[in-house]
This record gives sequence, structure tokens and C-alpha cells, in this order.
Amino acid sequence: MVRTRRGVDELQLAVYTAMTIAVWAGGNPDVIPTSGEIWPRPREIKRGFMTMVVDPMDFRFVATDYTCDILKQAMARYQGMITSQSSFGPGCLKEPPTKNTLRVVQVRLGSECEVYPHQDMDESYEIKVNISSTYGSGIITSQSIWGILRGLESFAQLLIPDGSLYKLTATTIKDYPRYSHRGIMIDTARHYLPVRKIEEMLDLMAMNKFNVLHWHIVDDQSFPYQSNKFPDLSEKGAYSKYHIYTGLDIAEIVEYARVRGIRIIPEFDTPEHMKSWGPGQPGLLTSCYKGDEPDGTYGAIDPTNEKNYEFLKSFLEEVSDRFPDDHLHLGGDSALEGLRCWKSNPNITKYMEKLGIEGRYDVLRAMYTQRLFDVTWDLPNKKSFLVWEDVFDRGIELPKNVIVHIWILHYLDFWKQSLREITSFGYRAIMSSCWYLSDYVGNNWRRFYACDPRDFEGTQEQKNLVLGGEACVWGEHVDATNIIQTTWPSACAIGERLWSSSKDTTDPEAAAPRLEEHRCRLLQRGYSVRPVFSSYCDTDVYL
Amino acid sequence: MVRTRRGVDELQLAVYTAMTIAVWAGGNPDVIPTSGEIWPRPREIKRGFMTMVVDPMDFRFVATDYTCDILKQAMARYQGMITSQSSFGPGCLKEPPTKNTLRVVQVRLGSECEVYPHQDMDESYEIKVNISSTYGSGIITSQSIWGILRGLESFAQLLIPDGSLYKLTATTIKDYPRYSHRGIMIDTARHYLPVRKIEEMLDLMAMNKFNVLHWHIVDDQSFPYQSNKFPDLSEKGAYSKYHIYTGLDIAEIVEYARVRGIRIIPEFDTPEHMKSWGPGQPGLLTSCYKGDEPDGTYGAIDPTNEKNYEFLKSFLEEVSDRFPDDHLHLGGDSALEGLRCWKSNPNITKYMEKLGIEGRYDVLRAMYTQRLFDVTWDLPNKKSFLVWEDVFDRGIELPKNVIVHIWILHYLDFWKQSLREITSFGYRAIMSSCWYLSDYVGNNWRRFYACDPRDFEGTQEQKNLVLGGEACVWGEHVDATNIIQTTWPSACAIGERLWSSSKDTTDPEAAAPRLEEHRCRLLQRGYSVRPVFSSYCDTDVYL
Repeated sequence: MVRTRRGVDELQLAVYTAMTIAVWAGGNPDVIPTSGEIWPRPREIKRGFMTMVVDPMDFRFVATDYTCDILKQAMARYQGMITSQSSFGPGCLKEPPTKNTLRVVQVRLGSECEVYPHQDMDESYEIKVNISSTYGSGIITSQSIWGILRGLESFAQLLIPDGSLYKLTATTIKDYPRYSHRGIMIDTARHYLPVRKIEEMLDLMAMNKFNVLHWHIVDDQSFPYQSNKFPDLSEKGAYSKYHIYTGLDIAEIVEYARVRGIRIIPEFDTPEHMKSWGPGQPGLLTSCYKGDEPDGTYGAIDPTNEKNYEFLKSFLEEVSDRFPDDHLHLGGDSALEGLRCWKSNPNITKYMEKLGIEGRYDVLRAMYTQRLFDVTWDLPNKKSFLVWEDVFDRGIELPKNVIVHIWILHYLDFWKQSLREITSFGYRAIMSSCWYLSDYVGNNWRRFYACDPRDFEGTQEQKNLVLGGEACVWGEHVDATNIIQTTWPSACAIGERLWSSSKDTTDPEAAAPRLEEHRCRLLQRGYSVRPVFSSYCDTDVYL
Repeated sequence: MVRTRRGVDELQLAVYTAMTIAVWAGGNPDVIPTSGEIWPRPREIKRGFMTMVVDPMDFRFVATDYTCDILKQAMARYQGMITSQSSFGPGCLKEPPTKNTLRVVQVRLGSECEVYPHQDMDESYEIKVNISSTYGSGIITSQSIWGILRGLESFAQLLIPDGSLYKLTATTIKDYPRYSHRGIMIDTARHYLPVRKIEEMLDLMAMNKFNVLHWHIVDDQSFPYQSNKFPDLSEKGAYSKYHIYTGLDIAEIVEYARVRGIRIIPEFDTPEHMKSWGPGQPGLLTSCYKGDEPDGTYGAIDPTNEKNYEFLKSFLEEVSDRFPDDHLHLGGDSALEGLRCWKSNPNITKYMEKLGIEGRYDVLRAMYTQRLFDVTWDLPNKKSFLVWEDVFDRGIELPKNVIVHIWILHYLDFWKQSLREITSFGYRAIMSSCWYLSDYVGNNWRRFYACDPRDFEGTQEQKNLVLGGEACVWGEHVDATNIIQTTWPSACAIGERLWSSSKDTTDPEAAAPRLEEHRCRLLQRGYSVRPVFSSYCDTDVYL
């Protein structure tokens, strides 16, 4: 009896589906998107044969076990997303079927919420959506709030817009990430990014299960970070008094990321790339000489000035205070000018003679780095530090709590040798060499997808030391007008590489239809994610 | 006495200026924008020493001679732009100085308005802005409405936002374009572009003095053009029933372009790139064979089917009707599949045997082109036809009213040989080989800027046959999410190359500060024009 009724509804649904397809088929697009597939691909996903309907006007999440502010906000966020999205789509379907409707999804969080996401957080979750009696039933389970967040995103992706309703198929998912560090680096020194735009990036990161925003906040070009202790730094180093991030801006961004399970790791790059620090902190930078006279320009930090280490300690204490994550990025990539300036400066030369390291600028740099580590050693809430691989290349003894960030020669495979060498010394590492997004070229997502941070010759121990990677969005040609289009969907490919099983994600052509659905999904959610195939999305006519 | 007063106001202005600069100086941007410079660079520009103020609340254009709907709309448009822009900028300046204020600009149109812009339209104009007695006086003069439109844009660019006012310097301009065909090609087949987005492109084209929109409207992927005579073409060939351009849409776009002095030249590409035509017009395409059986796929048009020429005639009559410009682009670029399919089809083979041209597919193609020209010869309002250079390469005799569109090998200099050869036969030509924008890469504007369509070995007569060029924005990876960022400001560089004197525009580095000001200007006007330098605009904090 029930079976019959259900049969009828099944038929009814089949009809809606047919209608929908009939409306949309046409032309010769490069790729036909999937329906209700999840990006990045989950570890295990089993599909049932039953289909259900979600009426956004009669649907809710219910937290049945532990709960907290993060969970409440997340349920409200996804509820809102489900409601607003449904306004899109082809025709409107007035009457939902009376049966096979999924009205409630239980959210089962198995423990107290942690306050901040962290390197070792548990992001695993399970989803069960099925028909029990004549109604749909849905359960999202995780031992950790971070897993619940990932699960909510996956659940939302199961929903297939269909008029004013959604369709979805009975599904069971067991999912967890492959890499623990899945990051995107933004650069707010070459161009300022408004707070709202950074939050848009965080939205999209959460929708692709990224968990680290690496914020390259200052550089030669500008110093938008407003310090309370040293206000002159941004006063004199920012592009303008409007192109800054106040303490409140940073608190807002940190909180926005926290409730999405995303860590914020700021980078303050030294000893080079510091030109914009100079005007606000006299004596910090080495003044460059022409012959016996300073030529008015400045290079790297002046390592001979003891005051500079006190300044760095005091400055980084404030930074540590504002950025709760226990990791800090110390930069350390080299720029030739810095060296040129050190060589030209007679005080530096004297200093090196005194130490008996004449001409050994690599040693001078290593000494600076050593001092920097001393300074950062006892920062209140920091226990790990990231550095660009240049620091390692100088062959200095690094503390074991350092994570080496590989970036060099991203168009060749030298990064594999670097990872092999660095991990052979027992250091942890992350990889960005393959993943420079700053100038987009149509189909580069395939190249990004093909590159795996653990794809180098080494022992299992060595590979386990590779925590993941980051997509780098350098700012020379990127600002609020194009950062979304430059980053997405290229970064989606990287997101799947970092989250999903490598054996299930070997073929970009197999991934293409899922990527196309995901791109259209993000577009439908209101983000200007650019196209990578000759094709269309239902909602691109409204752009 | 007046002199003294004026001196005071000058001083007053100097102070505002200083203030403004003080607010904005900071950091180390790659480039410092100019103030009140014009893009593309005018032929002659003389600057006076006097500075004036425009208060948008007390400013208007007055048509003193001929006028018409185009002129009235243009004055209203620029009035509105001047009023809205002034809301941006650093502080707000409450009280305008009582003197040296420019309150009225006379617009002197020396003849009746033409209805539609055309290949030989006069776009020259003059601007005089100066102090007469104690007030500013401004005059924009042209013999042609099209020149007035260009002049209004140049005048608007003289205005330097300064709080709620504008500053400008006494200036005399004599200006006219170097090339008569200054185009941008958009592709609505790979991706659909909403009407509003095409209009945004037209806005930006007018702001960069482009005068041709080449609309590559259909291709293999989709057929968004809705025909009244042959509704099945879009019914079955468009991506969806929403991804189409109705007759009304086209009329709206044509009118939007007309009042901005921009011609719309549609392209209907044959005999290849026609896959999307097939479902709506049975018998039009050649069916491809596997052995003795059709394999269900279709290639180029079937040149053996007489009905197809009747169809083309009837179809292109409707097209000519909807697009008033007297030029039509007939495409003609080759795609290998088309040939493959011709070779596989026994009827084509028989046909060729009958004509004694076995295996001479180049001849078959030439015959098709000949027939196409016969069809288009007596189209009511068309007198010139553009074709991609492939048609010429086949060495067929082209009518002299054909303009050859060079596009091949845009990364090498072979286009120079093509132009040399084509013009040596007395054909007119336009060039796109250097200007493929579809995938943007940070600094490519310098490469675009360096390329000049007349930079080939040939007589002056030959060079005069080169009417200009087009920036091509192919749609494989471009839709409404990124077409603005992909096209601009790269196309600004091409706009200056096509408009300005070559001798004044040899050095991209000299152009950079003007390009930076122009990019910020377009951003301030509300368009998502991407950055090409590490720098900032006053208004990018609001994005």
C-alpha cells in the first residue's frame, strides 16, 4: 500500500525531472553537469534508489546532542542558503508531494565544541539520508564541531534545485580529509582587499572545505595592518588612511573564519620585502649607500641594530594577541635588493668584519633568522612557525616546530626534490609550487588538479610530514574586482586534491562534470566564479 | 583687482590639492596615476596654467547649435556621470570658491545628426576650456554628432574629483582618430552574455572611443539568436529557452550602441562552426558517415543542397533587417571537423565527381563561398562584408567590397605578411592577431599596446587599406562573471593604439601613469576593471 503510494510519488518526481531536463537541454556544451554530486569528493558515498523532496518552506536542522554558537550559526546559515537558492531554477513547482518529503535533518554533535579550529582538528563526519516509513529522514553526525560544518556543506550539495523545491536521493556518506593543512594565501599589500571581499573568500573556502587562510598582509608596497603599539607603521606605510585593517577589522575576519572552521595564519615577512615598514619605524631598515653616502633608499631590515629585535618582539606580541591561531608565518623569502643594500652599507660591512664573517651575507642572514626565532620562541600563544623554503635553503639549523613552505619553481618539478630533502631532515612542510593562481588562464585547473604534494620519492614517514598545501593568490594584478574570478574555480580543483582520496581523483575529465555542477552551484549562491568550460548554468542568465 | 581675487582662489585651490595629496600619499605603488589626463591620448592638447572648479550641483551642458535625441541623451548621460562620481573621493569640500567656477559648457554641433554611426563617420572634435572674465568657459565643437560624443567623453576625463567638486585646468584639445574601425569582438555562443552585460561593454567601449561591436553571436556550441522566420534555430540550438536574444533584445542593444556612436556588426559564421544550426534546420548540415552509414554527427553546411542557399538568403535578409549597419561579418574560418565530414559523405563525393573536382575540397569550399557572396550580394542594406582571412587564404577571387579580418598566429608576426599580401591585392583589412584577450595575464597590456596594424612593409596605399583592428574576447572561458575583467583595461591599451598618433604612443612606460588614472576612473564609474599594477585607487576600498 505504502509501496504503491511511494511508487506514485516516485513517478510524479520522475515527471518533474523530465520536465526540468526538457527545459534545459540544448546546444553543444563541452560538459553536462552532474546533479547532487559533492565537491570535493567524499571518501565513501553510497547512493540509494529512493528520491526525496525538500520544501525549503518546511525544512529545518535540529541539533539533537551537543550544541554551541558555532553550530547554531551554521544551521541558520545553511537554512538561509537553502531558502534563498530555491528562488532560482527553471519553472516553479507549486505543490510538493505529500510523501517522501524530508522535513528535518538531525545534527548529532558528539562532544563539546572547541573554540578555535586548529592544525589537528577532527573534520570527519557522516551523513545518512533515507526514507523511513513514508517520510525522509536525515542525520549528520560528527564527534567534532568542525566535522559537522563539513557535513552541513556536503548535505547542502546533495540538494538539486527543482523549481521552488529540491530533489535529493537517499545517500550515505563517510568522509574525512586527506591533508590537515588546506590553505589559500591572499596578499593585501600589492592591493588592498576590503573586509567584505575577504569574507567572500572565506565563504567560498568553506564551500570547498579549505581550513586555512594564510594572510600575506604586508609587503614592500604597503602596510595596511594597523598596530596599536606602532600606529606609524600603517599611518606612513599604508596606501592611504582608508587602505588599512584596524584591530576591529581583524577581529571580525578572525571570527568570521572561526565559525566556518577556518584558521587565519598571518604572515609578517622579514628580513626582506619590508620597504613599507620603513617610514613608520626609523632605524628598522638598512639604508642603501651610493659610495660613501646614503642614497635615500632602504633595503632589508638592519640586523646590526639591537633595537630592531626588541621592536619585532613587541610588534609580534601584539600580532599574536590579535590572531589566536597557534601558528604564525614568518616569511623569509629573499629579494635581491635587500642583499644589494646590505653590501652597500659600511656599518653592516664593519659589523661583519667584527664578527669575522666578511662577505658571508648568507651567514648574516642566517644569524638574523636565528635571532628572529629567539624573539618568537616565547610568544604567548604560538607553538609553530611557517617559513618560506628560502630559509631552509640557507642550511641553517631550524627548530623542529618550523613548517617549511615550498613555493619555488612552480612550473617545474623541483618542488619534489625540495620536499624530499626537507622531510628527510624531519621537518614538516606544505606545498604551493604547483598552485600559483595569480594570473588565470582558462584551463589551468587541470594542471592544479594533477599536482599532489605527496607525489615525491620518499618514505611513508617523509610523506606524512607533508601536511598539505596552499593556493597562492599574489596581489600584483589582483584586487576586489577580480580575486574571486582569479581564485575560483581553480582553487576548487586544489580543494579536492587536498581533501579527497588520491585514487578516486586521478582523472580530471572524470571530475569535469562534477566541477561544472559545483561551479554552477557557487554561481547560484551568488559568487562570481568564472567558467572553465564552454557551457552554461541555469542561473547565468540573471548575472 | 580681479587678478588678486583670482590669485586668492588659485591659492585656495592649491591648498585643497595639497590636502587631497596628503590624504592619499603612502606605500610604494608601482605607478602614480596622472590627474585629468585623457585616454586615449588626443592628437593635440595644450594646457593653460589656470585652474577651475566644477560644482556638479551647479553645472550643465548647453547645446547652442544643432541638436537631436542622441545629443540630448549624451548630455544627460555625462551630466549624470559627473554628478554621481562626485560622491566618491576623499573628504568633502563644502563651499565652492565663488570665482573660477565652470558652470556651463557649450556644445556646438555644426550639422544635422546622422541616424546611425558608419565606417566613414567624422569623429573629430575640439574642446576649449578657459577662464573668461572671472568665470570658467567651456566649448565642445564638432561638425558631427559622433565627434561631439567623443568630445563629451574627453571633457569628462578632464575633471579631477576633489571632494564633492572637481578641479580642472584650462585646456585646448584638437582630436581625431587614426583608424576608422576600432572594434571589440564578443562571443555569445560559448557562453551567453545577458543584455545588460553587453550594454556594460558598450559603456566601456564608448569611454575608450571604440566604435564597432563585432558580435560573434552563434557558433558550434549554441544558437542564442532568435529568428522569427526560423524559430526552430534557437528553439533547438540555444542552451535553453532563457539563453536567447529576442528581436527586442537586439533592437535594444543596437539602439544602446547607436546613441554612443558604436556600430553593431553581427557575424554569422559559415560554412563551418555551425553545429548548433543543425537541429533547427534539417538538411542544412552535412551528415558525417562511418563507412556507408551516417554516424549521427554533423559537420559543415551541405553545399550540395540548393535549399540551403535559399535558406541562407532568407535568414540573412532578416538579420540585415535587424542590424542596420551596412557591414555584415560572414565568418569563414575553417574547422577541421567540417572537412572530415565532407570527405566521409558519399553524396558530397558524387557531387564533386560530377563537377570533376574529385578530392579538391578547397575548390568545393571556394564554390560555397562564391555562392554565399551571390546570396549576400543584393541584401537590402548591406554594402560591405567582413570575412576571416581563411577565406582569402583559399585564393578565391573576392569582391572588392570585402574586408579581410586577420587573426591567425597572433603570437608571431605572420600577420604582417598576411596584411602585406592582402593589401597588395587591393583589399581592405582589419587586424586582430595581436589582440586575443580571452585569457588574461597580468601585464599583457604592454604587448597589446606595442602592436600596430600598419606596422608592416608596404606602400602608403597598402597601409591606408588597413582600416583598424578588433580586440577579440572569445567565450570559451568568459561569461558575465569575468568578461569585464578579461577585457579591461587590456582593451584600453588597444583603444589608444587605434585612436592616437603612433608617434605620441611609442612607450608603454610613459603611458602607464595615464592608464592607471584611466583604470581608476572607470572603477569610480562603477565598472569592475581589473588592476595591472601593484597600486590602489581612491575608490577601491568601497568595492
